[in-house]
Formats: sequence, C-alpha cells, structure tokens
Amino acid sequence: MELRGLSLIGAELGQKGGAVFHGFNPASGQALAREFHSASRAEIDRAVALAAEAAPIWAKLSGAKRRIFLGAIAGKLERDAPGLAELASSETGLPVARCSGEIGRTCGQLRLYGLAGERGDWLDARIETAAPDRKPLPKPDHRSMLRPLGPVVVFGSSNFPFAYSVAGGDTASAFAAGCPVIVKAHPAHPGTGEWVGRLVAEAVADCGLPAGSFSLLFDAGFETGQALVKHPGVKAVGFTGSLSGGRALTDLAAARPEPIPVYAEMGSVNPVFILPGALAERSAAVAEGLHGSATAGVGQFCTNPGVIVLQKSPAAEQFLQTLIPKLEATAQGPMLTAGIRKNFMTRTAARGKIAGVRRIAEAKADAAGSAAPVWFETEAAVFERTPALSEEIFGPSSLVVECRDPAEMLEVARHLEGSLTATVHASESELKGQSALIEILAEKAGRLILNGYPTGLEVSSAIVHGGPYPSTSDGGRSTSVGTRALTRWARLICYQNFADSLLPPELQEANPQRLRRMVNGEYV
Amino acid sequence: MELRGLSLIGAELGQKGGAVFHGFNPASGQALAREFHSASRAEIDRAVALAAEAAPIWAKLSGAKRRIFLGAIAGKLERDAPGLAELASSETGLPVARCSGEIGRTCGQLRLYGLAGERGDWLDARIETAAPDRKPLPKPDHRSMLRPLGPVVVFGSSNFPFAYSVAGGDTASAFAAGCPVIVKAHPAHPGTGEWVGRLVAEAVADCGLPAGSFSLLFDAGFETGQALVKHPGVKAVGFTGSLSGGRALTDLAAARPEPIPVYAEMGSVNPVFILPGALAERSAAVAEGLHGSATAGVGQFCTNPGVIVLQKSPAAEQFLQTLIPKLEATAQGPMLTAGIRKNFMTRTAARGKIAGVRRIAEAKADAAGSAAPVWFETEAAVFERTPALSEEIFGPSSLVVECRDPAEMLEVARHLEGSLTATVHASESELKGQSALIEILAEKAGRLILNGYPTGLEVSSAIVHGGPYPSTSDGGRSTSVGTRALTRWARLICYQNFADSLLPPELQEANPQRLRRMVNGEYV
Repeated sequence: MELRGLSLIGAELGQKGGAVFHGFNPASGQALAREFHSASRAEIDRAVALAAEAAPIWAKLSGAKRRIFLGAIAGKLERDAPGLAELASSETGLPVARCSGEIGRTCGQLRLYGLAGERGDWLDARIETAAPDRKPLPKPDHRSMLRPLGPVVVFGSSNFPFAYSVAGGDTASAFAAGCPVIVKAHPAHPGTGEWVGRLVAEAVADCGLPAGSFSLLFDAGFETGQALVKHPGVKAVGFTGSLSGGRALTDLAAARPEPIPVYAEMGSVNPVFILPGALAERSAAVAEGLHGSATAGVGQFCTNPGVIVLQKSPAAEQFLQTLIPKLEATAQGPMLTAGIRKNFMTRTAARGKIAGVRRIAEAKADAAGSAAPVWFETEAAVFERTPALSEEIFGPSSLVVECRDPAEMLEVARHLEGSLTATVHASESELKGQSALIEILAEKAGRLILNGYPTGLEVSSAIVHGGPYPSTSDGGRSTSVGTRALTRWARLICYQNFADSLLPPELQEANPQRLRRMVNGEYV
Repeated sequence: MELRGLSLIGAELGQKGGAVFHGFNPASGQALAREFHSASRAEIDRAVALAAEAAPIWAKLSGAKRRIFLGAIAGKLERDAPGLAELASSETGLPVARCSGEIGRTCGQLRLYGLAGERGDWLDARIETAAPDRKPLPKPDHRSMLRPLGPVVVFGSSNFPFAYSVAGGDTASAFAAGCPVIVKAHPAHPGTGEWVGRLVAEAVADCGLPAGSFSLLFDAGFETGQALVKHPGVKAVGFTGSLSGGRALTDLAAARPEPIPVYAEMGSVNPVFILPGALAERSAAVAEGLHGSATAGVGQFCTNPGVIVLQKSPAAEQFLQTLIPKLEATAQGPMLTAGIRKNFMTRTAARGKIAGVRRIAEAKADAAGSAAPVWFETEAAVFERTPALSEEIFGPSSLVVECRDPAEMLEVARHLEGSLTATVHASESELKGQSALIEILAEKAGRLILNGYPTGLEVSSAIVHGGPYPSTSDGGRSTSVGTRALTRWARLICYQNFADSLLPPELQEANPQRLRRMVNGEYV
C-alpha cells in the first residue's frame, strides 16, 4: 500500500494545505518521515454530507450485505497483515507479534458483528397484532424495532491501533447496525490509520456501497474532532481514550442544539481485591498473574489493574515480597506516545509525594520514551480521604491499598469510583462470605472477575466492556465490546396499522428474514 | 384520605416551613384552599439518602415482589378512584370521566410493567460458557444482564395527573426495573399528587419494603427539582413536560461531575400528511377524525397533531371547508394551568403575525382559563423558511401547510424536526408510491401511523413513545410507554468465572427463574 498522508473523503483523497504532522517511533524516539495533512473544514463538511447521503441507503441495506462488507474488510486486513503489523509496531512501539494478534482479533470482531447484525436479534423486533373489536377502543397493529441513527463519528484509540481504531469495535458495530462511519484517525499511528482506512474504502467500492459509507480524517490537534462532534449531520460518537478527552467530547455533544450520544470509554482503575484465603492457597500464582496483567503492553490497557486491595498480614507481606522483585525486574518498554509517557512520569512523581503513600517498586526505565513499573502502597484511610488516589495513571503503575480488616476492605470498595472491571481473589471456603463485597463491586464496575485478571477481553455475545462513570460516559448502560455494542447506534421506531408492503422486511407479516420476534408478548 | 399538604420523606411526613403554594381550579379560575409546603434542602437530602439505602435492597428484590408491590399500588388507586378522579378534575379542569379513565390506564400500566419486570426478558440475560481447553487462550465463563441504576427521580407531568405523574409510567417502570423512586410532584395537581403518593407509601409499608423506596417532594418552583437532578445520590431522571423544562434538566444532568441520564419527553408537532387519494375517498371522515384528535383534552396531549400537510387542490379546499366549521364550533375548555393558557394565547397571537401565515379558524374562548381551537395555514415555502412554525404550541392550535405538489410535500417532511409521531393518510392505490415519504418520516418520528390519528396510545410490548430530538432528550433511543420503558433504568453487568452461589439467580446455572436466556449465542 502506497501511503499518501491524506484524509479519505468518501472515495476521494483529501487535499494538502492543512497543518502537517508526523508519526513518531516510540522505540527509537524519532519522528517518522511521512507527512500527514490535517483535514480542512470543507473536507469535514464534505465527509459529513456524503455520510448523510449514504445514511438512508445504509438504513435499508440488508444485514446480509452489511455482513459481506464487514467480511471484505476483514479479508483485506488479513491479506495485508504482515505489512500492517510492522508499520503499526513502528508507530506505536508495540511488538509486531502483538500487532499481528490484534489484527486477528479485529477481523474476528468484524465478522462477529456482521453475523450479529445479519441475524437481527439485536433489532428487538416486536409485533402487537390488531384487535379491531376490542372494547372500549379497538387495538391497533403495532410493529417496532431498532433503526440505525445515521452518520457515526469514531475516534480511534492510541492503545489499540487495530481493534479500537479505524476498523475497530466502534466502526464494526456501527456498520453492522447500519450506520455510515467517519473516523477521526488517531495521530499516534497515522500510517496504520491510513492503510486500514484505504482498505475500508476499497471494501466500500468492492461492495458497491455509496462513497459516503466511510471517510477518514486526519488532524494532529483537536479541531477536526470537535468540528465533527458539533456537526449537525453527525448523529452519534464513539470514543476510546482519556477521561479528559472523553468528557470534553461528551460535554460538546450535550451542548449541541440537538444533543447526540457519545459512547466514550475512558479511565478505569480496575480494582483487584485479594482475600486472605487466596493468599494462603496460591500467593505465588496470584503474584505472577497480577504481575502479568499489570505489566502487559507496558500497562497501557484500559483494564490494567490499578488498585490492589489487601488485608495487612504476614501473608500479604510475603505476597508483596514475591511481587516486588518481579515488578523491579520487568523490562522497560516504549510507551505509545511521548505525551503518554510524559503524563506517566508526571503523575507517578506526584503520587509519590502524597503524604502516606510509599513507593514500593520501581524498575529501570532509562531508554528514550520508555517506562517500567512504578508501584505505590498506602493505607485504606489515606486512600479514602485522597481523591487523587482514585484516579487512573495510564501505564504500569498500581497502588496497593492495605486494610486492617474485612470491614475496611468494604469501606475501600465503597469509596471506589466507577470502573470497567473489579476483581476478587478468594479461596473456595471464604467465597460464601463475600456477598456484601460482591454487591458493592457490582455497583462500581461493569465486569466482575473471580480469581482472574482484568486484562484480556473475550469478544462475545455476553461480554460487557463498560461501567459506571468515569469509566464510560453513559454510566455503563452500554458496552463497546461484544455483540450488544450494535444497539448503541440505533433508536426505536414503531409502525401503527401499516400496510405490509411499506414495512421494513423485519416487521412484515411473512417474516421473510425469519427473525426471532416478540409477537403479542411472546417470542416466536 | 385526609390530605396534609406535606412532602413524604420515605415513611415520614415533611415539615412546614418552606414556601407555601396552592392548587388552582382552572375551570373556576380560583385557587384551592389547601396549602402545600415546599420541601426543604434537608428533606431533599434525606429523601435521597433513604433511596440510596433502599437501592441495594431493591436491586436484589425479586421480580415477583416488585410485581406484587406494583399491584398493591394499583389496587389502592382503584379503591380510591372515585375520590381521586373528582379531586384531579378540580385541580386540572379535566373532566371526571377522563380522570377515571386515566386511573384505569395507570393501574393497567402498573400491572403490565410489574409482569414484564417479573418475566425478566428485559434483563437480556446472556451466558457464554467456559472452554478451558481453547487455544491459544482458554475461554472464560461470562454471564451478563441488566441491573437497576439506583435512585430515580421522576417529574410528574401536568397533562396526565395519573398516567404520567406520581404513580405513572416513569415511576412504574423504574419500580419494575428495581429502582427506588423520588417524585417531584407537579404543582398543578398537588392534592392528587399527595393522595397518590400516600397510596404508594402505604403499599411500601404493606409490602414490607424499605421506607426509602419512595418519596414525594413538593415545590411550586424549580429549586427542589434542580437540587434533585444535581444530587450525587440520584442516578437517573424521568421527565414529561415542555422542551424548555426538559432541556434545562438535561443540561444540568450533563454538567454534573458524574453525568446521569435524563429521559425527557418534551415537545412534538406530530405532523399529519393527508394525500389526495385519502381526500378523494374519505374527506369527511378524515376531517372528523382529525378534529377529534386535535381538540381532545383541549389539545393538551403530547401527541396532538400540530402540523397538517396537504396538497393544494379543490378537494383540499373542500376538506378544510368541512373541518373549519367543526373547529369553530368546538366548545372551549379549561386549560391545565394559567401559565399554559397564557403561553397558548401569547404563542397563537405571535403565530398570527408571521408574514404568510393566515388564521383560518378560531372558536370562542371567553371563559376564565379556557381555550378553544385557533388554526392557521401557510404555504410550504413559508413553513420551510420560518423555524418558529416548527415549534409546538401546546394546546388546540394546528398549522395547515399547503404544498403545490408531491415534491413539495417531501420537502416539508425533510424540514420537520423530531416528533413523537408522524401520520400519513393515503388511499390504497397511492400507498405504494409513498416509500420516499415514509422513509423521510421514519427519520423524523418514533411512531408512524397509517390512516389513523396520533392521540390515543396503546400501552403494550411493541409501542414506542419516543422520537428524535426535540421530542425526547435521548433522541428516541428509548420509550417512556410500553414494556421497553424498563430498560431506561438499568445498566449492564457481567460476571466472569463466577461461583454459581454468588451469581444473581437470573444467571445461575440451574436458571431457577426459568428465564429466557441467550446461551452461547442461542436463545434457550
């Protein structure tokens, strides 16, 4: 793929003229050679106008055609996987093998969401048949289902250059739900973004879909993203990134003359509660598992375990004495961007200065752009009275919170902010006493994990990747991963006493798509 | 029921001391004798604290117990229906028969939502079973479902003193979903509000539920409502009322440190497109049906048809000549409040002064507090260039928009803002040519009606009462009527590799509640 450094406005390449920026190799500390050109205001308007034209066509496109299109994107990603993985590695500092694996996951997502879209359960099709003789009033015929919202803007994330970027989960689920997509490419991996974007545009052309089905816009700054979120033609936004970025977009969208939903997946400390029985049974195994989860990807996963809650005891002391050397021996690795690394350094330095917080592990990180574990510990009382300790530090830093007793553990749980996940390690015998803890954590997180680790996410029909604020902007009412993600891009429509021929096929009497539907309150 | 004019803070009566206000009889033009006392800040805090205490109990309360509680409220409403209907009529000016009928609908809603909650389909329970031997990574066991959000604040509406007020649709669906409710009573029918609230509190006590399950707060102004929406213990808001009121609350909620959802059902013009074939076939019947729909309840339904779109023709002229005398002969009726009437007078006077807008019908309205039909007509071009004509006038005023041809009708459709409903009247033979119009209207409304009228709403599993902004604050992604209304008050939770005994019964392996669940992608 010969990259051009230009936005894709439907089937056309964007123009030069906007601010120029470069990718950056975090491993070498060097800017990459290729120039990328920020989109102009006219290009933004054109991309939205094309998407708005494409929206009614997409709304009527069959689920089967959407699936074929998503499969075509996956096929192209697989074809170009070796080159893509190498390019992404050079732009993100992530190992080539990780990038290859992520391409595989991305293709799996595209196909799974395409199948879910075609199958149509997510549409929640319902029929109440007429009863013209009912007294005192006749009962009309009502047929209702979800219907795509229209043009969706997706903000690619820096930490998943494939799975949560140009053709990632938000894009795949929006397409599967029947919405055109405009991606604001993440400037941390612009070459990867362009390459994947060009593949999506190829798939649009191959499948004979309208050019406005997909656009990709570059911008090193915030202007393009803000203009998109404020644009009256845009109907919903997907975002994966920082709390400050997600909140800024959510606020912009809420202040529009016509507010629109922003599904932002933001900060999360992913607390891990380790109970005494678990330490008695398998202290070394938990130390190893936690170390792996906390340091994977240089700690740059949204599910990175950032708060570890223990009861003070000789066994807990022993556990930390096993864990700390592992942390200190962890090889440094390049962070995704210079900005992320700077933030990591600033935030860990600040945390180390909080009264009552002790630095318990620090691994060597002397290479340009790199980071390595920096862990802290404190007491429950300090954690509870210091809101800054509840904030995520993006990267390989976690805070161990020591409790005097089970009651204090519950108190720490009550003080937690919303997270994507919460984890409990417990022995079989102490489990039945944990319903109070589990119930508190159920109020705090979207996914509760027993005797496992928060990183690593199954993409399936039952997964939930969402949680109370601030982990997501919509308080965990939706998920950005799994087949339930499709419903984010749709709204309800109901047809009353309609002629069969004017109904969408999903609601027609003969049920030509053989959907599972609720008819008069029963599923058939 | 001996009314006290005091808020209900859980099981306790509120205190006097806050600002005093009175109900108002719109039919007599007189203030009613009873004093009502606005809630204090301490009472607001206490109501929210009690609700927060009750929330975890409600989250674990079985659907069967919730259903029994909702049934108990319905039983009490039926028992007190005669007195309630009379009191509501004196406070709202609505006829006693209408109030009685509305109590019946309210009881039906309470029972239907209770059944839906118990049945549990709405929970969307899903299971993906573990595959420990899967390569390269074992597949964990995931079990997920919806879970109640916690304390919900409901703003009663003025135009439905029962069905959308203290024990109305928002309250019933929030209880059915497992949330404690705090109602901000509408000051236009405070006595009715107190009476119904006392019945709900009785049902709370009868069912042995925590006192914080329900509170009712009085305030003639906005302070209590705003304090509730901003309160950190409140997790969601339901509102039925004006666009300005709904938007103000939505903006407050979006600006909170932790934003929360506001489900506001606001303004809607409910366009009605009458095609030439329909006029040729049944002009007189349409005139009669439209007259009934537009004047029911002195035009004070959220689904009142406010914009009528016709093609200019002798048949259309004849249709209006049939309709206008009916409008002018319509008996005046009291509006719900003096404020609503003043607004109606101001808005209709202003509309009459817009260049290109003609007053075509005006019925006598000389009684205190009363209104009668005031209709206008204009041309498509004027409608399209005058945004004020797209705004709802709450009350018995509609605007006839005359088009030159079918293309201009489509253009008018494209210029519409979001509505709860859109209606098309067409003959059998012209129907098949209407897919373009239907598709545009599907983008504009939550419910499309063929050859019917927008007022009158079936409460069922398939109904949708929601639509694009400004008709609702969430753009029609949810409905405030029908069993789908429960999902508004919930978020997703997922359990990974959990011990069966720690799972909610809905997700346990043995499926003790015999729920329909999705297991490995298939419904069982």
